Amino acid sequence: MFNRVAIIGLGLIGGSMGLALRKAKAAQHVAGYDLGKGVSDRARKVGAIDQPYSALADAVRGAELVILATPVGAMRSLLRNVADVLSPGAVVTDVASTKAQVISWAEEFLPVSVSFVGGHPMTGKELSGVEAADADLFQGRVYCLTPTAHTRPAAINKVSQLVETIGARVRFLEPAEHDGQVAGVSHLPFLASIALVNAVAGSGGWGDASVLASNGFRDVSRLAAGNPEMYRDICLTNSDAIVRWLDEYIATLSSMRSRIAEHDKALNETFTAAQQIRLQWQASQEKE
Amino acid sequence: MFNRVAIIGLGLIGGSMGLALRKAKAAQHVAGYDLGKGVSDRARKVGAIDQPYSALADAVRGAELVILATPVGAMRSLLRNVADVLSPGAVVTDVASTKAQVISWAEEFLPVSVSFVGGHPMTGKELSGVEAADADLFQGRVYCLTPTAHTRPAAINKVSQLVETIGARVRFLEPAEHDGQVAGVSHLPFLASIALVNAVAGSGGWGDASVLASNGFRDVSRLAAGNPEMYRDICLTNSDAIVRWLDEYIATLSSMRSRIAEHDKALNETFTAAQQIRLQWQASQEKE
Repeated sequence: MFNRVAIIGLGLIGGSMGLALRKAKAAQHVAGYDLGKGVSDRARKVGAIDQPYSALADAVRGAELVILATPVGAMRSLLRNVADVLSPGAVVTDVASTKAQVISWAEEFLPVSVSFVGGHPMTGKELSGVEAADADLFQGRVYCLTPTAHTRPAAINKVSQLVETIGARVRFLEPAEHDGQVAGVSHLPFLASIALVNAVAGSGGWGDASVLASNGFRDVSRLAAGNPEMYRDICLTNSDAIVRWLDEYIATLSSMRSRIAEHDKALNETFTAAQQIRLQWQASQEKE
Repeated sequence: MFNRVAIIGLGLIGGSMGLALRKAKAAQHVAGYDLGKGVSDRARKVGAIDQPYSALADAVRGAELVILATPVGAMRSLLRNVADVLSPGAVVTDVASTKAQVISWAEEFLPVSVSFVGGHPMTGKELSGVEAADADLFQGRVYCLTPTAHTRPAAINKVSQLVETIGARVRFLEPAEHDGQVAGVSHLPFLASIALVNAVAGSGGWGDASVLASNGFRDVSRLAAGNPEMYRDICLTNSDAIVRWLDEYIATLSSMRSRIAEHDKALNETFTAAQQIRLQWQASQEKE
């Protein structure tokens, strides 16, 4: 289906992409590059790529599809560096968590002879790195694509084919629409989790209280263990949408706070509303 | 070790308590009572009790140890109802999530011929009901006991024996100290989870955004699926401590919000602080 595919950034997502492409026998050659020492060699060992390259230009040269699988923080300089070495006609896609900013960089740096289609697979794992890569990571998951008015239809088709090949389900969105929605369902959750840990552990009594922390604390605080630089870069590239959701969240908490202070016996109605939404969402996930 | 034990309330905690006691052969007779139709019969079927009773008085009569295993919302009327039927010398303990309020009810209603020791096992499961009961639910977990200046040492010993028998680790705390700590590590997390769901799903775009919600949303929102009446009753009986923690949480979120709005590049330091605390806490859990 694809002649030569280059994957730049061989972490969990890039590595899983390679494994899935090679499992499906969908590319004649999967080239790999990663800034990290030894990472691309390990990626070949686990079967995520056919060939590791020690220079970005060599990995990308001649590729018809280039997948930029780095966190959003690395994307600006990567797009700038890759611009000169892309083959004419190449299609470039990314997997970063925010899209409007990445697309503006792509429009700024990439030559008109190549096409860019922003992408974002809605999947993940607690573990990171190519050792955690999994050919089935995308199976059945939603994969957002955010073409713009400038995006060529042939490029959209090629990236859609990639998404289907790795077992995911394409969902087309406007870049700003994507960023607003993930700010609510993905970025607000990690900030809520981090704030919980810092609020509770910032107090003097954490040493004693931590012994009492159990499954509830475990679940809500899990995201706080994620990569701080990645989270920071998401905040920097999606700040407007994130700030809007934080305002909404703080308002919701403040309203609850007042009702708890007033001993409002009808609080269970608010809790029931959340319970119903959460149970419905869970049921919709299980159906898929 | 115990002659007759009565368990009042045969849900996940009461049922697991019965299973653990019977597994350890630590009681000659485990009597059970539950308001719910058919619950005590099912508890006998799964082996959580020796004998189901259809009247509270019959279950409690002659018991040397009475375990009140209902949510905190049922505790006031239960303590009032049980007061007249307890045998002199009986030791009563509970498993409710908040302690100061329960202890004040116990002091108000129970006769001086019986002893009360407040308790709170730090464990749980997503599932509820006696069918989810598990003899190992308390194994290795912290079990808070909150005796007061009035509590008789012999009663403390008896309840400590119970805790050790079911495999848990006793932790003694002042009632107010307990309530303050669990408000942070247990009650604030469920409120953070509920507020996330209500904030995100309260917006018009939830139908579209819910499709993008993935593992991060799943973890932080999990507690929102819990029992609304139980959560409400916890808020009603521990409102001061919960309000203090909510203020702390809202202040932490507001500070993050300002820094994100200002594109503060040092945000990763705040995120790293949370990451370190979370990883340390997780490591301490795994050691146990």
